[in-house]
Amino acid sequence: MAIVQCVPNFSEGRDLEKIEKIVTPLRGKQGVKLLNYEADENYNRVVVTVIGDPQKVKDAVLEAIGIAKDVIDLNTHKGQHSRFGATDVCPFIPIKDMTMQDAINLAKELGEEVSQKYEIPVFLYEEAATRPERKNLATVRKGEYEGLDKKFEDENWAPDFGKAKKHPNAGAIAIGARSPLIAYNINLDTENLDVASKIAKTIRFSSGGYRYIKAGPVEIPERKITQVTMNLTDYTKTSMYRAFETVKMEAKRYGVNVTGSEVVGLCPMEALIDVAGYYLGLENFSLDKVLETSLME
Amino acid sequence: MAIVQCVPNFSEGRDLEKIEKIVTPLRGKQGVKLLNYEADENYNRVVVTVIGDPQKVKDAVLEAIGIAKDVIDLNTHKGQHSRFGATDVCPFIPIKDMTMQDAINLAKELGEEVSQKYEIPVFLYEEAATRPERKNLATVRKGEYEGLDKKFEDENWAPDFGKAKKHPNAGAIAIGARSPLIAYNINLDTENLDVASKIAKTIRFSSGGYRYIKAGPVEIPERKITQVTMNLTDYTKTSMYRAFETVKMEAKRYGVNVTGSEVVGLCPMEALIDVAGYYLGLENFSLDKVLETSLME
Repeated sequence: MAIVQCVPNFSEGRDLEKIEKIVTPLRGKQGVKLLNYEADENYNRVVVTVIGDPQKVKDAVLEAIGIAKDVIDLNTHKGQHSRFGATDVCPFIPIKDMTMQDAINLAKELGEEVSQKYEIPVFLYEEAATRPERKNLATVRKGEYEGLDKKFEDENWAPDFGKAKKHPNAGAIAIGARSPLIAYNINLDTENLDVASKIAKTIRFSSGGYRYIKAGPVEIPERKITQVTMNLTDYTKTSMYRAFETVKMEAKRYGVNVTGSEVVGLCPMEALIDVAGYYLGLENFSLDKVLETSLME
Repeated sequence: MAIVQCVPNFSEGRDLEKIEKIVTPLRGKQGVKLLNYEADENYNRVVVTVIGDPQKVKDAVLEAIGIAKDVIDLNTHKGQHSRFGATDVCPFIPIKDMTMQDAINLAKELGEEVSQKYEIPVFLYEEAATRPERKNLATVRKGEYEGLDKKFEDENWAPDFGKAKKHPNAGAIAIGARSPLIAYNINLDTENLDVASKIAKTIRFSSGGYRYIKAGPVEIPERKITQVTMNLTDYTKTSMYRAFETVKMEAKRYGVNVTGSEVVGLCPMEALIDVAGYYLGLENFSLDKVLETSLME
């Protein structure tokens, strides 16, 4: 049974009543599960995580986008986080028994429906992008809500669905597809942030490290440790164990030890099972051999 | 809805045509799902995993046992694994919405049917055992097929169902109920079976090892290796990584390396995630943080 994850971000992080209205269509539907939603007052934004059957998740999210359009007015919206729409961004992540292409198709279906039903212009981003310069969300959203009128004057910024005209209060929306991301932190038994920083540089893509790792240093003063904090942007290509063992290897250079690690938020089963497979040297192992896999079908 | 798992082991691991015949009744029936079957040439044995509605699974397995009786002749059977029947062993495992007592009752129903329909003597084992000395499968099966005539001369070994007389080609069968177990084998880079045997003894309960490990040595001549073959009978108390690391530790004594391992049949997700947690030193980790967990609720 295919499972998709969808993480729509809505531009409301303060008014809990409005937030409840927006997430209502994501509750109590068969085949759709609202996993969590985190409202940030400073950002004035709520990040919602929902998983389930791809078509049912898409239909439920379509409803939520409609409610966000009704209750959010970008003309009066203020927040720390950049945004250009009432529903600002909506990525689909293939979790199980579906390909990235399936997630891209889902993004396109939703995009077409959003533009037709709500007259909100839609940009496709990340893996669903139709042009290279639209892959990066930051580029797509540049100028934010306030810059949309100007953006649409440029024919290079015609939306992928809908007219080149912002919705009068809901702006625009970026819909896309991407790999699941794992937020993963590794603990070092040193208070020296410089060591964590040097190690982060060796493993992150931007400084010559692994292609699917973003990394930086963090201090945890109350525990007298530092962390290498990471986003693993494609765990099927850069595994958790590889990040862990490489950090251990680099830490040796500074006489520092890795004392543990943590996953922030949710983590796909496959990523953890790959770790078990590596350390146990499992032969002929696949997800089919996990009992729960078959119970979910 | 109650779900039972049943893992019949049939004494045929080489002739794929025969294996297909045996598993045929487990396919395409409503309420019965054939999850996996793994034939092992050395063992000359196939381990089948089927789940579904308890009564329907029991009926389908009864059919499969009948076919195994028709196509397997223990008089000419040779393999590394001990066995005393065409269908050698058939445990029921309660998975969902059923108790161990329900699984025991199911084992008894099947036992009675097998003895009446096929004239195969049946021993109840593990949780379904009628006497303490029959709990342990190894004791029940001691002497194997070749020793059955002698075994039945001893009135203490009268079967639980059927006459005290082996079936002329299908031998006897052990039917039982148990908690989920993990069949787990660890590879050693030595052809010396004595080393595998000594290591097996250090880790298994019966010789002073871990409480929930049963273990023995196996030769894999075509790969020029040996294995410590194990049943982890309660992975929540004796974890896979503990078995793996302890075998590694003991192997050092003989200058032997652990080169990998394998899971035979199915493995609960929790057991593998525990392994990942151990090796990555994961803090504050629980099954709730696995995406798929929330899907199964």
